[in-house]
Amino acid sequence: MADPIDDSTDQGAPVAPAALAEPTDLTGSSGPEVDLGRRRFFRQFAGEIIQTAATMAGAAQALQRASAEAAGAILDPDGGSALAGLQAEFAGEPAPRGFRTPFREDGDVLYLIDQRHLPDALVEYDCRSAGEVAFAIREMIVRGAPAIGQVAAIGLAMTAAKFVDSRPYARRATLLGAANALRVSRPTAVNLAWAVDRLMARYMALGDLSEDGLAIATAMREEADAIVFEATTDHSRLAAFGYEALPPQTDVPLRILTHCNTGPLACGMFGTALGVVQIAHNAERPIHVWVDETRPYLQGARLTAWELAQAGVPHTLIPDVAAGHLMSRGEVDVVLVGADRVVANGDTANKVGTYTLAVLAARHGVPFYVCAPTSSVDLATPDGAGIPIEERKAEEVLSFRGVRIAPPDTQVRNPSFDVTPAELITGIVTEEGVIRGPFEHGLADAVASAKARRAASVSPFVAQGTD
Amino acid sequence: MADPIDDSTDQGAPVAPAALAEPTDLTGSSGPEVDLGRRRFFRQFAGEIIQTAATMAGAAQALQRASAEAAGAILDPDGGSALAGLQAEFAGEPAPRGFRTPFREDGDVLYLIDQRHLPDALVEYDCRSAGEVAFAIREMIVRGAPAIGQVAAIGLAMTAAKFVDSRPYARRATLLGAANALRVSRPTAVNLAWAVDRLMARYMALGDLSEDGLAIATAMREEADAIVFEATTDHSRLAAFGYEALPPQTDVPLRILTHCNTGPLACGMFGTALGVVQIAHNAERPIHVWVDETRPYLQGARLTAWELAQAGVPHTLIPDVAAGHLMSRGEVDVVLVGADRVVANGDTANKVGTYTLAVLAARHGVPFYVCAPTSSVDLATPDGAGIPIEERKAEEVLSFRGVRIAPPDTQVRNPSFDVTPAELITGIVTEEGVIRGPFEHGLADAVASAKARRAASVSPFVAQGTD
Repeated sequence: MADPIDDSTDQGAPVAPAALAEPTDLTGSSGPEVDLGRRRFFRQFAGEIIQTAATMAGAAQALQRASAEAAGAILDPDGGSALAGLQAEFAGEPAPRGFRTPFREDGDVLYLIDQRHLPDALVEYDCRSAGEVAFAIREMIVRGAPAIGQVAAIGLAMTAAKFVDSRPYARRATLLGAANALRVSRPTAVNLAWAVDRLMARYMALGDLSEDGLAIATAMREEADAIVFEATTDHSRLAAFGYEALPPQTDVPLRILTHCNTGPLACGMFGTALGVVQIAHNAERPIHVWVDETRPYLQGARLTAWELAQAGVPHTLIPDVAAGHLMSRGEVDVVLVGADRVVANGDTANKVGTYTLAVLAARHGVPFYVCAPTSSVDLATPDGAGIPIEERKAEEVLSFRGVRIAPPDTQVRNPSFDVTPAELITGIVTEEGVIRGPFEHGLADAVASAKARRAASVSPFVAQGTD
Repeated sequence: MADPIDDSTDQGAPVAPAALAEPTDLTGSSGPEVDLGRRRFFRQFAGEIIQTAATMAGAAQALQRASAEAAGAILDPDGGSALAGLQAEFAGEPAPRGFRTPFREDGDVLYLIDQRHLPDALVEYDCRSAGEVAFAIREMIVRGAPAIGQVAAIGLAMTAAKFVDSRPYARRATLLGAANALRVSRPTAVNLAWAVDRLMARYMALGDLSEDGLAIATAMREEADAIVFEATTDHSRLAAFGYEALPPQTDVPLRILTHCNTGPLACGMFGTALGVVQIAHNAERPIHVWVDETRPYLQGARLTAWELAQAGVPHTLIPDVAAGHLMSRGEVDVVLVGADRVVANGDTANKVGTYTLAVLAARHGVPFYVCAPTSSVDLATPDGAGIPIEERKAEEVLSFRGVRIAPPDTQVRNPSFDVTPAELITGIVTEEGVIRGPFEHGLADAVASAKARRAASVSPFVAQGTD
């Protein structure tokens, strides 16, 4: 059901960042309200939440494809320095500090941060078509289910753009083949097929043998931008609600413990648990993050530590086994984790090790928050007993990067997830607000509220395309 | 205070294996009872507890130095095949299966299993003097505080044997220098200085400028053999008591979860928590061991998994973070761990991660036993708040065997131990029996009982030397 490698990040169907205190409805139907809403969004985007040059540039690249107005709002007055900062970084000069999006666009090139090289080197991998994006997904250049959905959509839109002048049959064969290549590049990531299906539905709606290649390419590009926009919106709303739920300020930095990787690298712009960290950092609240290294695949050590270092967030890496010691010494104020699946009663499946953190947090009276968009909520499963636990390959435990750490024939048990019972969860942070136990009604209400909000809204990108 | 690398093994001042049901007093003062006691011990040693060729050979090598009778009892009737098996193994033929002692003697050579090469290769490292043993200790060829004490004693005895014909002043300079080299080779291992001091006290008792090099070498060799004998006795008694405390037999193998490495490699002949496993396996009780990999130094993956594989004990390696999942699924029947220090109220310091296991075990009603000889009991410290927690270097967490797993400048917190409060401990298994909470009186009684037993006893080796 999830990204087979970094599957503890949410699989949120992606949606608009908002002011910290109160997520704003950023979308309208049409008319001057739309423009006003859009302007507010972009101003908040630029001025309050996205504080760093690199992130701003990434956001601008994605957004400017659909809206010169949007790009202008983001890039002005700080836009010039943002692009300059990004260029300086890749020229070896001191890099701007901030959370990085896993991808950026420049002209007709999609640049991915090659996550295979992290944390050793920051290398970009460039893609110009759906086929190249499918390869990048398969090779783990990009991982994290929400991020995968977004780059797949952009890749498919790039292929449509290349074939504006093709004959309808050739275009159809190409787009169907490209969509299939993307779908099979990571079969367990639900966001991937979902994103591809959305773009292909826009294509089919125009007639699959339509002569108008430009209209097709434009529609598919709009849909890709909408997917990125929605993910950004949902995750930023979630992060803003999570920020409000943090324990009150004291005279020492708030000590947040997190597990696995739930940041922009996996999610696009904000992340879930790490999105809350990002908002807190950008709001200049003093924080210090304990980063669980997250054996066996070490997402915490390799990715979360890297993301926090890039963003300049004070953090300390710990072996997973040290979390209990820190809690027993009163050195953890709050635990923030992501979720792979939250079922109807609030029981939550997440990266293995999460359950242990919840048990420890309960013993020590430390608030334990699950950060998950409503797209990760599965109301059809009544409780955690109904969640299947994927077992992953032994090699992840027996060796790392080719270095053997155990006898080669050793039998291994490598569950990818565990289930945290609802009774141990202080709150579930969604893009609709923070839900507290008992969770049944709150989760159902949040899912309904999200659905209603999306049904009522049209993304500014799609709206503009049909203006 | 402990071996800086593998310090979760007990630091037991090393003492006689016994029948499984009831540890026997193996030592007497003198006369025919001594011989009878010795014969019973060796027969039990050979026939009931040490079941495998390699282990028998190791035991025999250590023991035969002091007692031809002892060696004969062990090696006959299976002794021939034992040595043949060991030779076959190193000639590349199928090896005999069994727990391995970390050292064996052959003539005037002490062979250590080079633990730096585990689990990749079984390589022996040969030592002929205290200086070579000091090097082996410093280079982590041998680790585990109890094992270090034993090999240091043998090394010092070997140097004394080389200098039987030296002039007194030269001998004194050599022995003082050798003792010092051993003491500084691993300053935190209390057993090391303790063992060296015992041998040097025997030397001084004969007069440090005595002309009788043979008497000095003989006395020091006796003391070294006594140290090995005592460690073997203590750990075997502990293991037998622990075996009796295991949950009752059901129709499935008993599922034991253990942490770090507490086996013969670290302890000499039995080990503490893994000593209980060894006794259960040799008694042919069906068991299955969950082996925590034990980040950051991976003693479980590298050493415990290897030891259990060599011995043919069914086992499965797990990332530390998976223990909670297994307990939540009812797949763990008992937790057995070692201890670095048990204080007066029963609070126990052990390898980091132990506390988390105790919290999980308590939540799931799984018995949690600490296996520690009385030499690890510190009655002078009232509770766990008085136990200092050593922080180890960041590099252990940032990389493994030269492979970097996190950004190089990442700040790390790497506590070596944590403290498990007495309330979470089902029982403390010592060589004097299993103590149950509240622990104050039981621990004090066990310490007194061990002291009285040792005061009343003379090891058969020392007894024989003064016969």
